[in-house]
Amino acid sequence: MDSRTGLPVVGMVGGGQLARMTHQAAIALGQSLRVLAADPDDGAALVAADLQHGQHTDLDALRAFAKGCDVVTFDHEHVPGEHLRTLAAEGVKVLPGPEALLFAQDKRAMRERLTALGAPAPRWAPVGTAADLERFGAETGWPVIVKATRGGYDGKGVWSVSGVAEAVDLLASGAPLIVEERVPLVRELAAVVARSPYGQVAAWPLVETVQRDGICVEVLAPAPGLAEELAVEAQRLAIRIATELDVVGVLAVELFETADGILVNELAMRPHNSGHWTIEGARTSQFEQHLRAVLDYPLGDTTMAAPVVVMANVLGGEPGGIGIDERLHHLFAADPGVKVHLYGKAVRQGRKIGHVTVLGDDLDSVRARAARAATWLRDGTA
Amino acid sequence: MDSRTGLPVVGMVGGGQLARMTHQAAIALGQSLRVLAADPDDGAALVAADLQHGQHTDLDALRAFAKGCDVVTFDHEHVPGEHLRTLAAEGVKVLPGPEALLFAQDKRAMRERLTALGAPAPRWAPVGTAADLERFGAETGWPVIVKATRGGYDGKGVWSVSGVAEAVDLLASGAPLIVEERVPLVRELAAVVARSPYGQVAAWPLVETVQRDGICVEVLAPAPGLAEELAVEAQRLAIRIATELDVVGVLAVELFETADGILVNELAMRPHNSGHWTIEGARTSQFEQHLRAVLDYPLGDTTMAAPVVVMANVLGGEPGGIGIDERLHHLFAADPGVKVHLYGKAVRQGRKIGHVTVLGDDLDSVRARAARAATWLRDGTA
Repeated sequence: MDSRTGLPVVGMVGGGQLARMTHQAAIALGQSLRVLAADPDDGAALVAADLQHGQHTDLDALRAFAKGCDVVTFDHEHVPGEHLRTLAAEGVKVLPGPEALLFAQDKRAMRERLTALGAPAPRWAPVGTAADLERFGAETGWPVIVKATRGGYDGKGVWSVSGVAEAVDLLASGAPLIVEERVPLVRELAAVVARSPYGQVAAWPLVETVQRDGICVEVLAPAPGLAEELAVEAQRLAIRIATELDVVGVLAVELFETADGILVNELAMRPHNSGHWTIEGARTSQFEQHLRAVLDYPLGDTTMAAPVVVMANVLGGEPGGIGIDERLHHLFAADPGVKVHLYGKAVRQGRKIGHVTVLGDDLDSVRARAARAATWLRDGTA
Repeated sequence: MDSRTGLPVVGMVGGGQLARMTHQAAIALGQSLRVLAADPDDGAALVAADLQHGQHTDLDALRAFAKGCDVVTFDHEHVPGEHLRTLAAEGVKVLPGPEALLFAQDKRAMRERLTALGAPAPRWAPVGTAADLERFGAETGWPVIVKATRGGYDGKGVWSVSGVAEAVDLLASGAPLIVEERVPLVRELAAVVARSPYGQVAAWPLVETVQRDGICVEVLAPAPGLAEELAVEAQRLAIRIATELDVVGVLAVELFETADGILVNELAMRPHNSGHWTIEGARTSQFEQHLRAVLDYPLGDTTMAAPVVVMANVLGGEPGGIGIDERLHHLFAADPGVKVHLYGKAVRQGRKIGHVTVLGDDLDSVRARAARAATWLRDGTA
């Protein structure tokens, strides 16, 4: 509790854009997010007053950081589970807890647990040898998807493999792997929910996530033309996963939509790219909701603020050309209604440096405006 | 320009809630607001990374603060004009500029200038002696409103006076005063606009401001039942004032609505309490717009995000009872849709410690929800 304000102190491990945007939400709630940042130039480190520097792999740094926090939560899932268990054993309130977070850290543990729950998923198997892979590919057909069980994001740690020969180096690397069938996709969806320790759950409408080269480029809210029963099924599934896994905070369930229904792809237990649209697009943003959830406040209204909301990620473009500030000028002149979020990151090609959000009534025009804005900020050209 | 991000550095003199909320808006634009705070416990000082401590009356502190800022702007109007002129002469971009800001600092200068512009206003006069006051009161009728030309806010520096005898001490104090007729009010309105150096102007819908004991307690957007021609007239007047006075940034024109039309009451050249509703209630908040304006970015869309938006100020209540954190729990349970903004201030009776905003379709229910939420946060009772 902050004695100056009488309000709680939430600590977030990791200083990226999720912490940056959570700080914005914390300010409204009378708080100031405490951030543990690895680098002084991290997006959240540039804007947060209550900043500590340290590595998320350093137990002593985590201990020092946790001191005086009412709750410790996360900008990413890379804090070692043993550190989290140690902190929890020492009385730190860590949310989501280490037992829940494991299923966002380890894809094999997640697949095993969801299989036990009977949640719909692609066929999958742990894979250690060429023979394992050969057997799985023969069963499901090639190509298959090989995944590192730990550390992947934005398409990293995921490989489409058309035969054992392609995976020789991967198998020899000794990294723990799983293999999944390649599912014939209609599209990708995400069900984003939040859950409090009390057990309250709130769900935002299902969204469609559009990927390019393994990176989410666009989120359409609500998912266009999604059958109501499928949307409800997906929300129920996400709520069930949140409850069974005892998740506290935001849970994003990335889903494949196939001709036969939905399958779980990945889990994230933190504010997630597929929920950025909620900042302007819903009565309660995922960032505010994450804070409310980890503080066991009653959750906020998830109603949409407009019939259609589209979020487009801004990726770093080719070096050169006009600077980001001048691009902003042009964008604001061209579209006074687009909402821009820049993360304070130096521009590197393909890196997520921000996002834009457009609200409106008509999907095609809203989507076109968001895409144009994101392209403009990336390339400085229309 | 911040070399890490390629984006500008805006400095705001004053560390109150306006700077606090401007920092939230700056984060989205990829910036981190630089704040000059008098006290380390100021609302913005608790949340801003780029913080300097110093008094707004200290020229050296202002000079040091301005170094590296692309623009210097203000959370309040109390920086001495001579300091502003010195900074401007030394090449600091000060916006709004000292010549404009004078009319928000000095009520006599404002009245003289607006009179010269032919803007509708209550009858007024400078007053130095009992004879001046007697003459004015005889002309307009008693009571009259006596105002200190400088330093007033939230009802401070304003006195309703029923006769010369009541004003003896005031007149003897030597403080520069003006006197205004007491206008038979229908209600109070505010026209909030923003203007850029380029000369672009954007206006939000007219709002009604409800005052109690000289403090704004509620803002209703749009002003209920306001005749369209009166709304347009008020917006045109605010735009004309912004343009003629060369205001850059947000300008709030506080207005009296009378049976005969509108009259200008006060001017503020910064984000203003009557514009807090825009955070959730309009596509572009006054805080983002102020930043866009002082940076000469094209201005954002001022369209409302819902048919009705009500903002209610949260004042500090009686000491004792349950703490603010527990009040928040109860409020969130009672109304998941209310948006809360707390300023990180210690609670003192009658002090503005935050505000709440409710969006909806029906004025009566939206207003009742906002009032209930504000009362609850003040008193811990319904």
